[in-house]
Amino acid sequence: MEETTIYMQGAVCPVPIRERGQIIMGHGSGGKLSHDLIGRYFMPPFDNEALRPGDDSGVVQIAGTRLALSADSHVVWPLFFPGGDIGRLAVCGTVNDLAMVGATPLYLTAGFILEEGLPIGLLERVVESMQAAVAEAGVELVAGDTKVVERGKADGLFISAAGVGLLPEKRTIGGALAQPGDVVILSGTMGDHGIAVLYARGELGFETAVTSDVAPLNHLVAGLLAATDQVHVMRDPTRGGVATALNEIARQSQVGIVLAEKALPIRPAVRAACEMLGFDPLYIANEGKLLAVVGREDADKALAALRAHPYGQDAAVIGEVRADPRGRVLMKTAIGSTRIVDVLAGEMLPRIC
Amino acid sequence: MEETTIYMQGAVCPVPIRERGQIIMGHGSGGKLSHDLIGRYFMPPFDNEALRPGDDSGVVQIAGTRLALSADSHVVWPLFFPGGDIGRLAVCGTVNDLAMVGATPLYLTAGFILEEGLPIGLLERVVESMQAAVAEAGVELVAGDTKVVERGKADGLFISAAGVGLLPEKRTIGGALAQPGDVVILSGTMGDHGIAVLYARGELGFETAVTSDVAPLNHLVAGLLAATDQVHVMRDPTRGGVATALNEIARQSQVGIVLAEKALPIRPAVRAACEMLGFDPLYIANEGKLLAVVGREDADKALAALRAHPYGQDAAVIGEVRADPRGRVLMKTAIGSTRIVDVLAGEMLPRIC
Repeated sequence: MEETTIYMQGAVCPVPIRERGQIIMGHGSGGKLSHDLIGRYFMPPFDNEALRPGDDSGVVQIAGTRLALSADSHVVWPLFFPGGDIGRLAVCGTVNDLAMVGATPLYLTAGFILEEGLPIGLLERVVESMQAAVAEAGVELVAGDTKVVERGKADGLFISAAGVGLLPEKRTIGGALAQPGDVVILSGTMGDHGIAVLYARGELGFETAVTSDVAPLNHLVAGLLAATDQVHVMRDPTRGGVATALNEIARQSQVGIVLAEKALPIRPAVRAACEMLGFDPLYIANEGKLLAVVGREDADKALAALRAHPYGQDAAVIGEVRADPRGRVLMKTAIGSTRIVDVLAGEMLPRIC
Repeated sequence: MEETTIYMQGAVCPVPIRERGQIIMGHGSGGKLSHDLIGRYFMPPFDNEALRPGDDSGVVQIAGTRLALSADSHVVWPLFFPGGDIGRLAVCGTVNDLAMVGATPLYLTAGFILEEGLPIGLLERVVESMQAAVAEAGVELVAGDTKVVERGKADGLFISAAGVGLLPEKRTIGGALAQPGDVVILSGTMGDHGIAVLYARGELGFETAVTSDVAPLNHLVAGLLAATDQVHVMRDPTRGGVATALNEIARQSQVGIVLAEKALPIRPAVRAACEMLGFDPLYIANEGKLLAVVGREDADKALAALRAHPYGQDAAVIGEVRADPRGRVLMKTAIGSTRIVDVLAGEMLPRIC
């Protein structure tokens, strides 16, 4: 790649930096550009055993205890949307990342970046919402930080959450553990969060009753893991949607995943919105759903456990794992053809979480 | 307080919020307004045993192991300054918060909020700097997240770090443990970070050779704790400076602290800059210094241990703890008078970390 040296402006002491292009909105999509950025600029310098698998949480060992650590920054706009807000999103995002590796989420931290002029009453509402989500998840927020930037240097409120969870001793769940023969389960309908946020932005152009699915999934996961020891992979299909999350799993496990289009749970209102906007619901963000790759013999147990919880009522088997094509996701369409389901390329819905 | 209901703008679904005024820059100062905001709007809803003490890290217990958890968001401007940058700052801020409760920092997480248009080469330099600080501290970064916002909705790059550290079994260090008779030690010169950042902003109006002290203090702390078991309190005097940190300790411990002005270590260049700008160095941020409140009988051991480390060469006893006046900090001035040293009121240097 071509390199030239430029100097950072705006400061007395000029700082030479290598020119490698600029950040674009697609780098935050959760799709291909995000993976490229992280794979190229973040993973090599920080490389270590916990980071390398590329799962939702890093797994570490402290004094003989296995812990999961996770971090998420939230920049969703608008701050409030049908079914949730940035506070509930921040808590659930971190709780869910911990739950996806099989950990019991225990403690969270939160860093707030506030824009000068933010109404304090709005901050108060967000904090109330966070506390409700913390209580629902059964975790505690034990450390925090608040920074303020000048008007015009942020967008109201950003929240960065991190968390720690306890891993069971004899169980390993990770993106690299999908095996040919496994079934792929989705815990409910696709795309609710993304469409609800678009609606809140006034970008739909029509009314919809869709609300975000944003929810803490740790109790749903606890029920699933109690019902079967054959859960090999879990992942919450947030930015980039179900398609991108499944591609990550296919690549990590070096397996093929074949989806059945007819089996995909989608609310009619979400389907209608996607058709009008030209979106594929497979790429729309979810904030209260999980994908589980489960040994086929326990598929029914897993489904029953998920459906027994309010957040898993619409759980369905949506596909299966095969040996080939390695690292790819295919879909059997409703009309009987097969198409490749790739990771999200470029940017679809910026600032969805 | 007067309450009216207003509606958040910019979204299809109006959100009623209670009007309680707006966030101003002083809410991020680390001083009185920060304490008021946190004490009123964050502490009551999230109240729990780990949060209540108000120390630099929350202390929790997982599977019989005592851990410290900490979080910091960083919005420093400019991103690079003499002696450091936002990446080194983010790592050191979290490492130091863990070290201040006596924990051995082990694992970090990082969330990046990037502004569209940020040169990738600049991000690469920041990540390199973080990695160098991570290596120096001997910790690992095990989870991360990247979000992108539109041009004009952030200011280049914000980094939120969180961390976990292991606490020794039989040792408790906290802001409430200062005792009358203890001495107060500062590990080196005051105000270097704040003045270096002001210089980088072009706001000094003159040249200076001051560089930021930003550094990971965990090895310095390890040496101190190995030398004496009489360390009662540690705190890193960042935003709000030495004056604000000591006021926090005096309030938490319900003791008086009396400083000796003549004993305060200050670089001549920092003193000169403060005199020209009308700043009191007691309120200027440090990012590589610690305050230690130590039993008097071990003061010499503590000083020797600090001075044996490059980051503690200029360590000095700067004051002592008394029974009265409870919750207040006083200073014996160079001319023999006594004055009250209060917490930082309002805003002094915005976006210093």
